[in-house]
Amino acid sequence: MQSTMQDVPLLISRILTHGSTVHGASQVTTWTGEGAPHRRSFAEIGARAAQLAHALREDLGVGDGDRAATLMWNNSEHVEAYFAIPSMGAVLHTLNLRLPADQLVWIANHAADRVVIVNGSLIPLLAPLLPRLETVEHVVVSGAGDRSPLLAADGAGNGVQVHEYEDLIAGKPTVYDWPELDERTAAAMCYTSGTTGDPKGVVFSHRSVYLHSMQVNMTESMGLTDQDTSLVVVPQFHVNAWGLPHATFMTGVNMLMPDRFLQPAPLAAMIEAERPTHAAAVPTIWQGLLAELTAKPRDVSSLTQVTIGGSACPPSLMEAFDALGMRVCHAWGMTETSPLGTVARPPAHAIGTDEEFGYRVTQGRFAAGVEARLTGPGGERLPWDGESAGELEVRGPWIAGAYFGGPAAEPLRPADKFSEDGWLKTGDVGTISPDGFLTLTDRAKDVIKSGGEWISSVDLENALMAHPDVTEAAVVAVPDDKWGERPLATVVLREGATADFDALRAFLAEHGKIARWQLPERWTVIEAVPKTSVGKFDKKVLRRRYADGELPVTLL
Amino acid sequence: MQSTMQDVPLLISRILTHGSTVHGASQVTTWTGEGAPHRRSFAEIGARAAQLAHALREDLGVGDGDRAATLMWNNSEHVEAYFAIPSMGAVLHTLNLRLPADQLVWIANHAADRVVIVNGSLIPLLAPLLPRLETVEHVVVSGAGDRSPLLAADGAGNGVQVHEYEDLIAGKPTVYDWPELDERTAAAMCYTSGTTGDPKGVVFSHRSVYLHSMQVNMTESMGLTDQDTSLVVVPQFHVNAWGLPHATFMTGVNMLMPDRFLQPAPLAAMIEAERPTHAAAVPTIWQGLLAELTAKPRDVSSLTQVTIGGSACPPSLMEAFDALGMRVCHAWGMTETSPLGTVARPPAHAIGTDEEFGYRVTQGRFAAGVEARLTGPGGERLPWDGESAGELEVRGPWIAGAYFGGPAAEPLRPADKFSEDGWLKTGDVGTISPDGFLTLTDRAKDVIKSGGEWISSVDLENALMAHPDVTEAAVVAVPDDKWGERPLATVVLREGATADFDALRAFLAEHGKIARWQLPERWTVIEAVPKTSVGKFDKKVLRRRYADGELPVTLL
Repeated sequence: MQSTMQDVPLLISRILTHGSTVHGASQVTTWTGEGAPHRRSFAEIGARAAQLAHALREDLGVGDGDRAATLMWNNSEHVEAYFAIPSMGAVLHTLNLRLPADQLVWIANHAADRVVIVNGSLIPLLAPLLPRLETVEHVVVSGAGDRSPLLAADGAGNGVQVHEYEDLIAGKPTVYDWPELDERTAAAMCYTSGTTGDPKGVVFSHRSVYLHSMQVNMTESMGLTDQDTSLVVVPQFHVNAWGLPHATFMTGVNMLMPDRFLQPAPLAAMIEAERPTHAAAVPTIWQGLLAELTAKPRDVSSLTQVTIGGSACPPSLMEAFDALGMRVCHAWGMTETSPLGTVARPPAHAIGTDEEFGYRVTQGRFAAGVEARLTGPGGERLPWDGESAGELEVRGPWIAGAYFGGPAAEPLRPADKFSEDGWLKTGDVGTISPDGFLTLTDRAKDVIKSGGEWISSVDLENALMAHPDVTEAAVVAVPDDKWGERPLATVVLREGATADFDALRAFLAEHGKIARWQLPERWTVIEAVPKTSVGKFDKKVLRRRYADGELPVTLL
Repeated sequence: MQSTMQDVPLLISRILTHGSTVHGASQVTTWTGEGAPHRRSFAEIGARAAQLAHALREDLGVGDGDRAATLMWNNSEHVEAYFAIPSMGAVLHTLNLRLPADQLVWIANHAADRVVIVNGSLIPLLAPLLPRLETVEHVVVSGAGDRSPLLAADGAGNGVQVHEYEDLIAGKPTVYDWPELDERTAAAMCYTSGTTGDPKGVVFSHRSVYLHSMQVNMTESMGLTDQDTSLVVVPQFHVNAWGLPHATFMTGVNMLMPDRFLQPAPLAAMIEAERPTHAAAVPTIWQGLLAELTAKPRDVSSLTQVTIGGSACPPSLMEAFDALGMRVCHAWGMTETSPLGTVARPPAHAIGTDEEFGYRVTQGRFAAGVEARLTGPGGERLPWDGESAGELEVRGPWIAGAYFGGPAAEPLRPADKFSEDGWLKTGDVGTISPDGFLTLTDRAKDVIKSGGEWISSVDLENALMAHPDVTEAAVVAVPDDKWGERPLATVVLREGATADFDALRAFLAEHGKIARWQLPERWTVIEAVPKTSVGKFDKKVLRRRYADGELPVTLL
């Protein structure tokens, strides 16, 4: 039987229209480093997004489904691009300015970007790449910065035209008759860069962005209103800044944008001056802020809620911010999950009890709309008992079911990333409590599969690093004839300490509460743990060194 | 370009599964009048909803799209029906137990209900109607109450079988493999009864219910969490209890259900005993509660947030509840809007200022997802200037675009209820401020269309009733050769007062700030304003009396 409801598609243009009318007085404030911050109302952004869409379509010929990229900091022009590009029917491609040049080139070519909007301050990054960007026809520059490296490219006969953002939109109509798209149309895309293989493109739809925005605005998630100002530290080039630009336009939340001023000192200054009530950031940035605030105290009393994601926040950092009146709330997600998957708001019964902090250091509780299951080493479904560890798989309307295959190719569904019934395999290993709280214990690629059971490399590492003689430890899986895989413990010793592997092994059993069968037999001392470009342990280097016989292993 | 997101339909079964696992410990508490309240966890309700679905499908033969009706108070079994019936693919039809018997019969026959689940206490209402219910095959009885009137019907050879709810579900599996429906499938239906014509059926879809639930959980709307308990006074037979049963399962909000104990004394008692943090009710119920609390003070300090809808809350009542620590928040909607259309949370800039109360007495600000426009007397689009009054038209994914035409008929789209481009004509006349706050001034059928302009009957009535000699006043449109329509003022005088229409007219102009051209020329004294069954002014009776020459009119 059919319902009698209107069939209104969930479109980003509807979020823009709502935000720029009902919440037209709300503001995006962009930090400028020196002098007054730049302020623009949601109404102005609505008008300028319409102008930008006219310019992209009429002057630059951007058509339905064409990719228009941004290489920008968090600022109000980037918000304009966030709304203009998808609303007109094109696809916003946010380029991650932290990536190595070769990856940026590969990604822009793979996405077949026709336009790049770039901040003036990032011209030195873009200009040298331009000759290698095969599909880019137009570069649009916004904000201060020396244009000359680009103008050289413009005249180089490679067909790239360079435009000034403000000149391009000036005089264009401030309204746009946004098309009534199918809500499953592509709206935005973002590439993830794993440690192996080519980057993978995730293509968000209008529907997924819209639903994700509603979830972000639910009280159980971030739950902000027009009484709030959110300091959006998490970059707009990183999973849509966790959905904040869209979510804030839905409910009139003011945004404070740091632009390129992401260092601790300007962050502290902008918090004191602009008095945000909320911030969203990764732990490393926040750790720097803590040091800054300790060295030079500021009035940061406005900021009571901080959403931290990207990686787990060390409990000590959480406590330090609690002491400052900033309540840190963990959230877990990934590019493939838009990203909101879990939020660590303790359940009602735990609030004010000894259990509360224990809930806050989990990854959080699954949001309504995100279904989760755990898959064990043999592919079996594991219970939500808070103890059984398996690979986390998720399903939901804002979760990826494939990767972008390229403009003319079918979507990619690699079997190690998507189950046969369409769920996303997150690559994260963890437990789920009966009340739906996720605790991650390892990455699936790092977990040791020993005789049909799993051993968490992270648990072993944490237990080892608690020993006074150990400054760093990395545990990796190595092949074993009998068990399939066994753990190899690689430790970095503090200066002056001597290797006593028997003692370390006994320490793990006694103080680390590691089960007997999980204790490593293979041990080695290394000079330092190899790291990836973003500072994570690079365990594949250690595995390769072991395979190549480069590590002198002691067998206990 | 296609997105790479999973295509997961928005289904009520997903809300049920989430609520009964992640929030399995949250509770529905049903008041029993005497003795301990009845408590059931979300996990138990999930299991029992599965059992009910098995029973309906396997024992009673309820198939896809079949209507299964409820004639029930607010209680946990009604919540079970709310989830079981749509989740299995059938359609929940909530019968309004306040309707006259003839309307109930018409509605149940029009919907072709196959099953009615009834509370034992409502058997005296249902039993006499049974012989006239043409399509009902099964009656399922839940809770205490004399069964004998039904059992007589059961043996009367009319083919109706009577079942006990608990016997029916006992022993059934506590899980159900909920079907993966199209999200636009009908989920629930509710009839509106206007003052003229047949009742109109609104059929909600899984999609509309799901999206509406997300909106209810947004902080700008009700925004509750598992730390809250919501006292759901608004009946489940009235627009899905404003969406609360669905919304609460999404986020683990506990529900306190009053069952049939809707009188002021038990309401006060249950608030004191169960300490809800939120309540949802219509003003009349809340007015009675105020009198009760004044006569017999209770500890109602837990209850800090009260959502009031259905009709406007008198400012005096709002202030009285403010004084008790209960913050009243206006919301506007109708059956056709699911119902959430607006919520009167003042904008950030008004909080703590003289403007705040002025915002709270409006109908509220449009929710994200609800688009609004005003249409003037000549069909022209009016600005959002807080002054131009027009008929409110709305669009959105949880707004009706048609009425149910019957099981075998096409949906109905009467031109006075739906615009050519598919928007709902609400029949409400009002203004919208530039920041999206709606103020209703009249019903479209009561507004006086005079020379291409509109005169609000409500404004004239309020101004007249401020005069000390006037106890009640109703203003209706009457035909006028020159202006099309003009206002007729009908007044009820206080005992002992004599009619001085010139003085009343002057009073309107001076104290009521009514524009010269809006002042009525036609005046009459009546004994009492005729009222509808729900206590509203019945202006069509007055218009008919005028047309029939029954009213002695003075022309000024």
